[in-house]
Amino acid sequence: MIVPWLKGEGGAEVPEGAYVHGYGEREAQRLLDQADSVMDLVHRDTEFPSGSMVLEVGCGVGAQTVTIASQSPGARIVSFDKAHNSATLAAQRVRAAGLQDVHVLTCDLFAAPFEPKSFDCIFVSYLLEHLPDPVGALVSLSTLLRPGGEVLVVEGDHGSCYFHPSTPEAVRVWKCLIQVQSELGGDSQIGRRLHPLLNAAGFEDVRVSPRMVYADSSRPRVQDQFVMKTIVPMVEGVRDQALADGLMSSTEWDTGIGDLKSTGSDPEGTFCYTFFKAWGRKPTKPLGSAF
Amino acid sequence: MIVPWLKGEGGAEVPEGAYVHGYGEREAQRLLDQADSVMDLVHRDTEFPSGSMVLEVGCGVGAQTVTIASQSPGARIVSFDKAHNSATLAAQRVRAAGLQDVHVLTCDLFAAPFEPKSFDCIFVSYLLEHLPDPVGALVSLSTLLRPGGEVLVVEGDHGSCYFHPSTPEAVRVWKCLIQVQSELGGDSQIGRRLHPLLNAAGFEDVRVSPRMVYADSSRPRVQDQFVMKTIVPMVEGVRDQALADGLMSSTEWDTGIGDLKSTGSDPEGTFCYTFFKAWGRKPTKPLGSAF
Repeated sequence: MIVPWLKGEGGAEVPEGAYVHGYGEREAQRLLDQADSVMDLVHRDTEFPSGSMVLEVGCGVGAQTVTIASQSPGARIVSFDKAHNSATLAAQRVRAAGLQDVHVLTCDLFAAPFEPKSFDCIFVSYLLEHLPDPVGALVSLSTLLRPGGEVLVVEGDHGSCYFHPSTPEAVRVWKCLIQVQSELGGDSQIGRRLHPLLNAAGFEDVRVSPRMVYADSSRPRVQDQFVMKTIVPMVEGVRDQALADGLMSSTEWDTGIGDLKSTGSDPEGTFCYTFFKAWGRKPTKPLGSAF
Repeated sequence: MIVPWLKGEGGAEVPEGAYVHGYGEREAQRLLDQADSVMDLVHRDTEFPSGSMVLEVGCGVGAQTVTIASQSPGARIVSFDKAHNSATLAAQRVRAAGLQDVHVLTCDLFAAPFEPKSFDCIFVSYLLEHLPDPVGALVSLSTLLRPGGEVLVVEGDHGSCYFHPSTPEAVRVWKCLIQVQSELGGDSQIGRRLHPLLNAAGFEDVRVSPRMVYADSSRPRVQDQFVMKTIVPMVEGVRDQALADGLMSSTEWDTGIGDLKSTGSDPEGTFCYTFFKAWGRKPTKPLGSAF
């Protein structure tokens, strides 16, 4: 099915039956584990109105697509990612869930094949952190939103992370994650900035709701799914770069990772991390309008 | 009125009409401002059962006493502080609020004039952070609790604090606060440790609920009451010690304080801090009991 508001260029709907073997499946599982463990925390109150046109930007492997679609019966959802393999995995999940009104596309954020003002709602998550100009991205997306339409943004904030026991080595491996990600041009501490960013992009009635993940031994599922299967692999993912940059020795690194694991597995361990959920409304009057 | 379960030694009820002029009133206002701005966040679900005997430990100037008592009709509350002036101010507030079943005493935590197992609930807030042996304090308080009784603990965690804009100088003044407080022998980052601490003190069914304060320009009351009137004065309170310790120059300090103020007053400023609320139950069977 062709989505009616497609301009017909710059993007391609993932066809029925497309499948990717092997590639990214472990990463996909990591993303799904993260989403499953924080999904309720972040999305318990996400529901797009029946009849609304919703654009999900940077859907990745569809970790959140099924949840937001399932919680929004009657909404028509278009999800896209610039990585074809990710979008293909997302499309598989959508079909496996039996969702009819979700369309998954491969396209680029800055060449999105949609008419201006096509959407009632735009959902952006875990994307702005990677962009050198998040305000520019929000302004660009705003053109796709009808006046009065809403943007919903979810981002993490790596500076919101702390834990117990807080050993120097565990703190250092965490700081390596922030450092390596900053070298890639993004801002992994963007969560705290969502309010000013949405305001700077021209949205009105901007409101932010922090969602803090807290894990201790009375919450074994959060410890397992979030700390051990999301956080630890994410940090381990920057090991080679951190050692190549000389940020830590391999011995120090191994100690730090071991200590970080203990915050999510030892009886006395605790772990804290906060996601930020933000909404903003596109003005119904053009900026500068006298009335 | 003499509280019936007083052993009659080691403490003194603040008499009717006691009044303190001048001393600590500004500090008292700071504490009250803090409590008023985070009161709902922390205590919206605090309610001690009707008929229960409740001990509030280290009540200070009574910032929370009136709230917990008002929310717990039918509970009998004994609040104490070792500082007579603070307890006197607390007693004034209790009387001004017309609360009948609240008794305010001056006594020391480790020489509390109560019979063992006198209380159904014990409430401890913003106290453990100052103690060199918080587990010892909890064990000591546990003796005052009937088997099956509950302890409620509220503490902050200075390591949970982050903000935007996050200038190096603002981060440094905040770290000075942590450093100076650690020199006094406490742990200002104790919030994340409440779960293991209550477990180590022998409590059962320990559960922790983090309460995150988030301020941006859409929440002017939180900005004003929490950031500008609680956080900033608290940091300013360690200025002299921080400069004497050579942690920052006075010029750097002034820049840092100015930057910190901007996080709670500028349109783009945001501020985050988390309190931890924890409950635990005293076992009904003695430890080591076979049944």
